[in-house]
Amino acid sequence: MGNYFTHQRNTNVRVSLPAVCFVWQIAMIILFGVFIRYDEESDVRLWLEFVEHENITSDIENDFYFRYPSFQDVHVMIFVGFGFLMTFLKRYSFGGVGFNFMIASFGLQWALLMQGWFHSLDLNTGKISIGVESLINADFCCAGSLIAYGALLGKVSPVQLLVVTLFGITLFAVEEYIILSLLHCRDAGGSMVIHAFGGYYGLAISWILYRPNLRQSNRLNGSVYHSDVFAMIGTLFLWLFWPSFNSAITDHGDGQHRAAINTYLALASSVLTTVAISSMSQKGGKLDMVHIQNATLAGGVAMGTAAEFMITPYGSLIVGFCSGIISTFGYLFVTPFLDKYLKLQDTCGVHNLHAVPGMLGGFTGAIVAAAATEGVYGSEGLKRVFDFEGDFKDRSVGTQGGFQAAGTCVAIAFGLVGGAIVGLILKIPIWGDPADDNCFDDEVYWEVPEEEETIPPVLEYNNHMIHKHQEMTESNFSVDQS
Amino acid sequence: MGNYFTHQRNTNVRVSLPAVCFVWQIAMIILFGVFIRYDEESDVRLWLEFVEHENITSDIENDFYFRYPSFQDVHVMIFVGFGFLMTFLKRYSFGGVGFNFMIASFGLQWALLMQGWFHSLDLNTGKISIGVESLINADFCCAGSLIAYGALLGKVSPVQLLVVTLFGITLFAVEEYIILSLLHCRDAGGSMVIHAFGGYYGLAISWILYRPNLRQSNRLNGSVYHSDVFAMIGTLFLWLFWPSFNSAITDHGDGQHRAAINTYLALASSVLTTVAISSMSQKGGKLDMVHIQNATLAGGVAMGTAAEFMITPYGSLIVGFCSGIISTFGYLFVTPFLDKYLKLQDTCGVHNLHAVPGMLGGFTGAIVAAAATEGVYGSEGLKRVFDFEGDFKDRSVGTQGGFQAAGTCVAIAFGLVGGAIVGLILKIPIWGDPADDNCFDDEVYWEVPEEEETIPPVLEYNNHMIHKHQEMTESNFSVDQS
Amino acid sequence: MGNYFTHQRNTNVRVSLPAVCFVWQIAMIILFGVFIRYDEESDVRLWLEFVEHENITSDIENDFYFRYPSFQDVHVMIFVGFGFLMTFLKRYSFGGVGFNFMIASFGLQWALLMQGWFHSLDLNTGKISIGVESLINADFCCAGSLIAYGALLGKVSPVQLLVVTLFGITLFAVEEYIILSLLHCRDAGGSMVIHAFGGYYGLAISWILYRPNLRQSNRLNGSVYHSDVFAMIGTLFLWLFWPSFNSAITDHGDGQHRAAINTYLALASSVLTTVAISSMSQKGGKLDMVHIQNATLAGGVAMGTAAEFMITPYGSLIVGFCSGIISTFGYLFVTPFLDKYLKLQDTCGVHNLHAVPGMLGGFTGAIVAAAATEGVYGSEGLKRVFDFEGDFKDRSVGTQGGFQAAGTCVAIAFGLVGGAIVGLILKIPIWGDPADDNCFDDEVYWEVPEEEETIPPVLEYNNHMIHKHQEMTESNFSVDQS
Repeated sequence: MGNYFTHQRNTNVRVSLPAVCFVWQIAMIILFGVFIRYDEESDVRLWLEFVEHENITSDIENDFYFRYPSFQDVHVMIFVGFGFLMTFLKRYSFGGVGFNFMIASFGLQWALLMQGWFHSLDLNTGKISIGVESLINADFCCAGSLIAYGALLGKVSPVQLLVVTLFGITLFAVEEYIILSLLHCRDAGGSMVIHAFGGYYGLAISWILYRPNLRQSNRLNGSVYHSDVFAMIGTLFLWLFWPSFNSAITDHGDGQHRAAINTYLALASSVLTTVAISSMSQKGGKLDMVHIQNATLAGGVAMGTAAEFMITPYGSLIVGFCSGIISTFGYLFVTPFLDKYLKLQDTCGVHNLHAVPGMLGGFTGAIVAAAATEGVYGSEGLKRVFDFEGDFKDRSVGTQGGFQAAGTCVAIAFGLVGGAIVGLILKIPIWGDPADDNCFDDEVYWEVPEEEETIPPVLEYNNHMIHKHQEMTESNFSVDQS
Repeated sequence: MGNYFTHQRNTNVRVSLPAVCFVWQIAMIILFGVFIRYDEESDVRLWLEFVEHENITSDIENDFYFRYPSFQDVHVMIFVGFGFLMTFLKRYSFGGVGFNFMIASFGLQWALLMQGWFHSLDLNTGKISIGVESLINADFCCAGSLIAYGALLGKVSPVQLLVVTLFGITLFAVEEYIILSLLHCRDAGGSMVIHAFGGYYGLAISWILYRPNLRQSNRLNGSVYHSDVFAMIGTLFLWLFWPSFNSAITDHGDGQHRAAINTYLALASSVLTTVAISSMSQKGGKLDMVHIQNATLAGGVAMGTAAEFMITPYGSLIVGFCSGIISTFGYLFVTPFLDKYLKLQDTCGVHNLHAVPGMLGGFTGAIVAAAATEGVYGSEGLKRVFDFEGDFKDRSVGTQGGFQAAGTCVAIAFGLVGGAIVGLILKIPIWGDPADDNCFDDEVYWEVPEEEETIPPVLEYNNHMIHKHQEMTESNFSVDQS
Repeated sequence: MGNYFTHQRNTNVRVSLPAVCFVWQIAMIILFGVFIRYDEESDVRLWLEFVEHENITSDIENDFYFRYPSFQDVHVMIFVGFGFLMTFLKRYSFGGVGFNFMIASFGLQWALLMQGWFHSLDLNTGKISIGVESLINADFCCAGSLIAYGALLGKVSPVQLLVVTLFGITLFAVEEYIILSLLHCRDAGGSMVIHAFGGYYGLAISWILYRPNLRQSNRLNGSVYHSDVFAMIGTLFLWLFWPSFNSAITDHGDGQHRAAINTYLALASSVLTTVAISSMSQKGGKLDMVHIQNATLAGGVAMGTAAEFMITPYGSLIVGFCSGIISTFGYLFVTPFLDKYLKLQDTCGVHNLHAVPGMLGGFTGAIVAAAATEGVYGSEGLKRVFDFEGDFKDRSVGTQGGFQAAGTCVAIAFGLVGGAIVGLILKIPIWGDPADDNCFDDEVYWEVPEEEETIPPVLEYNNHMIHKHQEMTESNFSVDQS
């Protein structure tokens, strides 16, 4: 009966997928037409006026030159990093990298609007101004939904992913507004707003969409040799460019500089502890590719909030040290536990890579903020780093620490509640999701090339021998019969 | 008879390939010795003088810091982007990425000379000065020939590719001089001079080199699972860095900033419409990797000319919207049509990815230029963006639009006529091109590793069982005989 | 007896690998706590003071913006470039990219300390200040050990690699101090201090660790089709970003600009001569992937020292021309010779890619330095490029040339002597190195996924047919028996 049902499941998205894409893209064009304009550093008329009024002496002071190299690194992380990290499954590499490509392209447009409405809407003109920092923020905003995809990988349809992304971007913009603007938290690399939110968002959806019979069909839920090598492309580009991720939108000058150094150090440290725990846990001390591909990145996630603070170089190493250990333990013990006892299937283990290290990063940020002193930062420096200006000019670092911790909780709450609601929406049986037997299989949503041609010579020889024997046996058999 | 002929074909390039490489490289050394020098921003003496005379306050104003990050992104596109995009064939990945590497390295040297003679030859000293912008232009110039390679992939010898590149670079430099200098067109990302030219150049060559019997041997003209994943590396790096491609040589400040934003948006939009059309066209709504790998990039091609203009963010989305649709339709209907009725074999479908979107981009640029107003650009801005200076200081935007359209036609004409002539040269039977049966096969020009060793255990078991059965059957048989 | 011994070899690293990682990482945290601080451009308080005292007008003058894009390119080379270049072996791709990841993360922390002690220890405060240039130097320092790994690939345990790296970084810091500080050599891209040192260091270790019976088990010492394509990812990212490698720490402004141009040209030239020699050497003119993957990079190695000098563009082409030829000849003749007659097994051929081109680059630098004139550099320029200041303000270019040559010899000597000592340490039978039969096999140190699931349909059919025949034959057989 269960099998009967699954075999009947309609995975045809020939109407729904194009319809969503077209409607959405047309809506984007209209909304961009109404709302979005170039900002004063990318509009030729405004830039020339800006240069004149601000006595800017060189075009090099355009924000483009401060942030564009970091933007491109972040861009690589979003599309190549996240995309290839999800190619590790033996027969879901098209879906891993291809759907990641689709939903990020879909999400970044909506993100420009949502973040624009919340953060840079000019109430006089009714327009949103965008520049390079907006592009970085849009990529960041997509990251939350891509993280959620990691938990759902192989178990949902492309239409469901678009729904996940649509709500994910929306929720992101709201929680980001609450955390960064209302609570006035600092979160340069998004430990809270990106990783904790995205991780718990994906986990909540996956929990609602639990498939009790999935284990029976998990023949495809694993890697092959070359798919693991493909995944390392994702891992390495994420790992390498994480210093750019955490420094992309921090303060010009020392802020970006310090955030990059701190992240570089935390990442190096988490590689070593990941190797250590991975080796300890396996017979013969063998390393597990799942750990190397994922837990090595936990240092970058956990430095997301504190990277721009004066956490000190050894503080960064400690953060990486702990997060590498915690993340690898998560892959070893927590993911199987969640699957078995909490009915939570987390394909990529985003719990261990994003949710927990993100939460850890949020609280680390709170502690480092609360421990800030004028001796270390200077009085100007404290204002510069924590943005103690305007309404917040009298906030103490202790209060700031408290708000940072509160912000982390807000992010988690948004992820869990939002994810549960989106999960329920996705249960409506109209989205073309795959049957249990078809999970983790590109055949459902992709034209997959036939493989016959790749048989190496020796196998063709096998084939040939089989036919020859077949003839021999048959003739033999006929002789016997006679 | 046809078969007899093809089996006799001489694909030995042991003399011709090294000879061309050596002669060429030595010629380059001599010509560089005579002509090429560092420019005032890369020569230590000239830079120190320049800094003094121009009252430059910081080394950061060296053009290197404006353009080097974009240059490296373009460089990745040329070598990794184009190279890996062409690894999609099951047995031509070495040729795809390897010959791309060879001809780009070959072409960029010639491009520095050709573009130098046309654009930066100092008539007093007889020298060409090069700097980082020259390197970007040389990479751009190679792109035209690499696009042509896409149409020829798998059907030509490496020596033929060097000939294609030699003439391709030469033609490029001439048409670029006509379009940019004589017609005074703007073409930041080369919709006209790179994509339209390169696309039609490759198509014309391929049309002349038509192989009527090729369809019979197209066993290798397709992908396998992992070669499609390799090709996605190319797609993503092209897609990601296209904003850098279109902004690399635009005006400092707002120009680079705006070009990057416009391209980013057009690309996102073309992904969505590509997905929509691809899904609509296939049974069950399945996506086709060919479309995802290629048509998603059409938005970048089509924004090549207009990226630096004030096309507005929603204008960019519209360009991406249309080009994604047109390009995917091209893969679905035009490429098969060309192959069947026009005797034009276009391996990578450059018609749909470069030729048509490039032409579209050229005309889009013409329209956007003609529609420019002082209200939007400011009067200084108009001069800045369209370079209305010197001989062209009184040109109206309407006239500029007309010249932009004319420039597009010049690019296409150069591509078609130049390609036809080069195609005829390549028909001379001295270049070592492969027989129809050997097309799309790396074995012809590469030492390809044997595959026996990769047989997984279960297959070795098969092998073992076959031998065992063989023995059984034989003994059986001998029993029968007795 | 030999076989008996090898089968008994203990490759269990379950205690040693975690122990080394943990002890090391904790030591790093303590030493960083004692010694390492942010420098004046990454510390918020110090930067604000610096800006005020130095009358800096914009944050863009922070060294971060001069060097961070180049740093990220170098970072990609170290982790993706070196890592993927070593994935070419059919069954050692995990080890190639994974151990590279591990030892670079391990090494860069130690490098920050070692290089800090030698170059930027403040004797008053006892602290080392780090900034973006320190990160680049740490990556460079790791490169030496990663090169050595190339010679040892597949034949050592991860614990041995950590030992190689620990001593490699230490030796590097000492030789670098002697060459750059005491001899006052210039070595922007490290032809001497990185490539010559690293190459000979690895060769000396490999010579000591010679395995006489290895040839018998070299079934796995080769590539398969897709592993060669993976390796091209490494090659291309190394090739593309080499201009950043050689320009990353050169003088601001013209220095970085010129180094990038020179390296770009040398690399292009070495591709052409590599293709020529590779094609000449093979039957039918077929290209060999080993040459294309490696010798094409020799131009970058050989430009490491002279890249920042006024070598002229055609001089760069000549350097690339020669190094491509020499490196390819090395792969054709020297590596087999070393293996057969000198008992030196060099898995990746670092002799041809790093040792010899590095030495060549060192001597090229000496010649170019000795040939420098005031006419070309200007008198200010000579001081700027060769840093003729302080104790060295009266040094002549001829003397400088002599010291450059001496520096090259120092680097080679450090590599050979240091490598021999480290090799002897690695002979102690406690490091868990693999038996000859297990060399080049990921199974020893990695959990490798089973491959059964990837069997394409036709093979499952084979399997099915085999079983069917088995039944037929058996029934047949039983009929016979009856």
